[in-house]
Amino acid sequence: MLEGRHLIEPDDLSVEEIDEICSLSEQMIVDPAAFQDVCRGKILAALFFEPSTRTRLSFEAAMLRLGGAVEGFSDAQSSSAAKGESLSDTIRVVSSYVDVIAMRSPKEGAALLASRFSSCPIINAGDGGHFHPTQTLTDLVTIRELRGGFENLTVGFCGDLKFGRTVHSLVQAMCRYKNNKFVFISPSELAIPEYIQESVLDASGAEYESAYRLEDVIDTIDILYMTRVQKERFFNEQDYIRLKDSYILDKEKMKLARPDMIVLHPLPRVNEIAPEVDDDPRAAYFRQVKYGMYARMALIAKLTGCL
Amino acid sequence: MLEGRHLIEPDDLSVEEIDEICSLSEQMIVDPAAFQDVCRGKILAALFFEPSTRTRLSFEAAMLRLGGAVEGFSDAQSSSAAKGESLSDTIRVVSSYVDVIAMRSPKEGAALLASRFSSCPIINAGDGGHFHPTQTLTDLVTIRELRGGFENLTVGFCGDLKFGRTVHSLVQAMCRYKNNKFVFISPSELAIPEYIQESVLDASGAEYESAYRLEDVIDTIDILYMTRVQKERFFNEQDYIRLKDSYILDKEKMKLARPDMIVLHPLPRVNEIAPEVDDDPRAAYFRQVKYGMYARMALIAKLTGCL
Amino acid sequence: MLEGRHLIEPDDLSVEEIDEICSLSEQMIVDPAAFQDVCRGKILAALFFEPSTRTRLSFEAAMLRLGGAVEGFSDAQSSSAAKGESLSDTIRVVSSYVDVIAMRSPKEGAALLASRFSSCPIINAGDGGHFHPTQTLTDLVTIRELRGGFENLTVGFCGDLKFGRTVHSLVQAMCRYKNNKFVFISPSELAIPEYIQESVLDASGAEYESAYRLEDVIDTIDILYMTRVQKERFFNEQDYIRLKDSYILDKEKMKLARPDMIVLHPLPRVNEIAPEVDDDPRAAYFRQVKYGMYARMALIAKLTGCL
Repeated sequence: MLEGRHLIEPDDLSVEEIDEICSLSEQMIVDPAAFQDVCRGKILAALFFEPSTRTRLSFEAAMLRLGGAVEGFSDAQSSSAAKGESLSDTIRVVSSYVDVIAMRSPKEGAALLASRFSSCPIINAGDGGHFHPTQTLTDLVTIRELRGGFENLTVGFCGDLKFGRTVHSLVQAMCRYKNNKFVFISPSELAIPEYIQESVLDASGAEYESAYRLEDVIDTIDILYMTRVQKERFFNEQDYIRLKDSYILDKEKMKLARPDMIVLHPLPRVNEIAPEVDDDPRAAYFRQVKYGMYARMALIAKLTGCL
Repeated sequence: MLEGRHLIEPDDLSVEEIDEICSLSEQMIVDPAAFQDVCRGKILAALFFEPSTRTRLSFEAAMLRLGGAVEGFSDAQSSSAAKGESLSDTIRVVSSYVDVIAMRSPKEGAALLASRFSSCPIINAGDGGHFHPTQTLTDLVTIRELRGGFENLTVGFCGDLKFGRTVHSLVQAMCRYKNNKFVFISPSELAIPEYIQESVLDASGAEYESAYRLEDVIDTIDILYMTRVQKERFFNEQDYIRLKDSYILDKEKMKLARPDMIVLHPLPRVNEIAPEVDDDPRAAYFRQVKYGMYARMALIAKLTGCL
Repeated sequence: MLEGRHLIEPDDLSVEEIDEICSLSEQMIVDPAAFQDVCRGKILAALFFEPSTRTRLSFEAAMLRLGGAVEGFSDAQSSSAAKGESLSDTIRVVSSYVDVIAMRSPKEGAALLASRFSSCPIINAGDGGHFHPTQTLTDLVTIRELRGGFENLTVGFCGDLKFGRTVHSLVQAMCRYKNNKFVFISPSELAIPEYIQESVLDASGAEYESAYRLEDVIDTIDILYMTRVQKERFFNEQDYIRLKDSYILDKEKMKLARPDMIVLHPLPRVNEIAPEVDDDPRAAYFRQVKYGMYARMALIAKLTGCL
C-alpha cells in the first residue's frame, strides 16, 4: 500500500513497491492518454526552497499529465521562511491546501522533518547532499525500459562518486537485485566513500572494482552512469578546474564500448559528455529525462491513492 | 448580489453577504468534491507585488479546488512594473486575460486603485498596513464553524494591536453582531489605536477592557486571537527585542483558559505561540488555515458568478 | 499545415497562414466558450529567461482558456542555466515534458537555436532586439478586427523606430498586402533603419514618408502605432531624457486625427500616450491586448495540432 505514504529516501520503497511503480510507469509510457484524468481534482504543491528547474518542471508535468493541478514556489525568496516561519508551520499550512507535496531543500533532513508535520504525502525532491529518491526511481524505470530488468548487469559509475547522492542511491538500489557488478571510475579524491563500500556493497556481497581511466574499463560495462562534477561540492576552485575535465565521455571512448551499452546521466551536464555523443543510439540520458516524468506520474498516482 | 463585485475592505460585505459566504464555505467544508467543477474555464490571476506564500497558495488552491486555473507572479521583480508600467495599465491588461484577480501590494490603497481600472473583480489580498479582507473572512468562517455563530462571545486579542490590521478588521466585524465583549492584551506601546476605540467600539456600544498580562484575563475569553509581533513595524530593533517575547502563549497559560476556548492566529507565527500548544485541542490556528481556503473558494465562486 | 511547426520570426508564416490564424482568432473572440476544451491534456511551457509579465500571462491565459495546462519559469535565476546547463539541453529536457514551448530570452537567436533541439513546437516570445512574432500576430488580428483587413491603409509609426522590433516586423508584415502607405514619425536619432527602407519598403514598392512632428501628419493616418521609448536602448541617460517626451500622444493631437483612426501600442507604455486618451473610442491598445490573447490561443491550437 503506497497510498498516504511519504517518500523521503530510496529505501522507503520495498523491491515489490519499486516493481509496482515501474510497471505502472511502463503502462503510462505505452498509453499516456489513458491516465489523463487519474488525478483530476487533486493538487500537487512544488515547494522548492532552492531552484531546480528540471526537477520541478518534471514533477509539475507529471501531475498535469494526470489531470491534476499544481501550485508552489521555485526559490526560498518567495516563501514565508523570509518572515521567520518554521518549516514545520509552512508544511502544516501547505499540506492543508493540497494532496501531495514535492519539496526540495538545501538542508539535509528537511524532507524527513517535513513529513512529521504534513497531513499529506511528502516526496523528497532533494535535500542537500542527502537523498533524491525520484532520481533513483527515474534511473530504475529507465534501466528496466532499456535493459529489461535489474539483474546480471555491469554498472559503471564515472565522475564525482564521493558527493554524488544519485550514485550512492543507485548503487544501493541495484545491490538489492541479483548478480550485478559495479565499476567505479573516478579520481581518488572523488572515489566512492568507504561507508558505501562497507555497508552497501560488501554487505550485499556485490562484486565491484575501481578504475582511474574510463577507457580502460568501458568495454566491460552494460550501463554507464555519468555524473556532473559540481563546482559547489569542491573545497576550492583550483581543485575543481584540475579535475572537472578528467572524466569526459566522447566519441572516441564510445568506440570502445559495447554495442548495447546505455549511457545515463542525472543531468544537468556541463561538459562531462561531449555533445557529439548525443546522437549515438546508446546515449539514453534524454530518454531518461522523459522516463523520469513517467516515474513521477506513477509515484504521484500511487501516493495520492488515485491508482 | 456578489457577482462582479470587488472586495477591497472587510466592510464592503454586508452582514447578509458574510452570512452567504459563511454558509457556502460550510457546504464546501462538508462536501468539497461537489464543488470541483464550479469554476471550470475560469482563470484567477494572483498578482503578488510582495511575497506572501501562505496567502498566495491559499488563493490558488481555492481556485484550483473549484476546477479553475491560475496564473500570476509572486513578487514585484517579475512584474512589468520594473519597466515603468503603471499599476492601472497592469490591471487593465491582466483583467482582460482573466476572470478574477487577487492582488497583494506593499502600498496602501493599491487594491482600491486597481479596482477602478479592472474589467474583472479585484480581491484585496493585503495592501500594506491597510486591509486584508479575506483574512477577516477566514476568521469569521472559523469562528462560525467552531463556535456556531458570532454573538455572545468574549474575544481576546493579544500582541501587536497597534499595527495589526487583521485585529482591527476582526474587531470591526465582530462589532456588527450582538453582545460581544473584547479584551485587548498588549504592551501600552502596541495598544489598540484610539480611533478604533472611538469609531468602532464606542460607536457600536461594545463592551471592552484592556490588560497588560495575558494570564490575568485568559480565563474570561472564548476566542483568543494571537498576533505576530512584526519586526518591520518597529521603529528600532531594541524595542522589538524588548517586547517581542512579552506575549507568548504556552502550556502554563493554557491551563488557566476555558475548556472550550479556541486559539486563532493569522499566521505566520514566530514565537508568540509555543509549539507545545499545537497539540492542545483548543489550538485552532491550523484548522483556521484550512477554513481560509474554503472561505476563499466561496468568495471566488460568488464574485465570478459561478454560484 | 501549422501542426508541429515553430514560430521564430513573423516571416515564418505565409500570408495564407496568417489568414488562417486571424480567422480562427475571430471565431474565438466571438465564442470563446466553444474552444475551452480544445487543448485539454496538453501542456505549455513558458520559459522566460528574462521577465515579461504581460507576454507571459497572455500566453498562459491563452493555453488555460483552451483547457490546457501551464508550467515554466519567469526569470533566469530559477532556471538550470545557473548550474551551467546549455540552452540546448534545457530545451531537450523541457520539450520532453510538454507539448509546446513559449520562450523569451535576452539573447538574439536564442529561439532559433532552441528550435533545433526541441521535440515540440517553439514559439519565440521575444529574443532580444530581434523578433517577437506573436506581437505582430496580435497587431494583425487587431487591425483585421477593427479595420476589416490589411489593404489600402495608411499606417503611422511614432516614437522609437530604430530599435523597435515590433515596428520593423509590422512594417514587413503590412508590406505583403496591397496598397498600404507608411508614415514614420520620429526624431532623426531614432529613425527607421535604412535596411528596412531598402530591403522591405523599397523592395515591396510601398509608398512611405517621414515626419518629425506627429501633429503635422496625424490627419492622414488610419492606424497610428505608438511605441515606447525604451531607456535600455539608449547609449546615455541625457539623450533619453531629451527625447523621451518628444512624441507624446494627447487629447490635443487626437483632435486633429481622423474619426475612424485607431491607436495601437505594443505596451507597456510609459508616458508616450497620455492617460486622457484612454477613454477616446479610437484608443484601441487595451482591446489589442485582449486580441493578443486570442491570437496566441489560435496559434497554440494550430501548432499543437489540436485544431
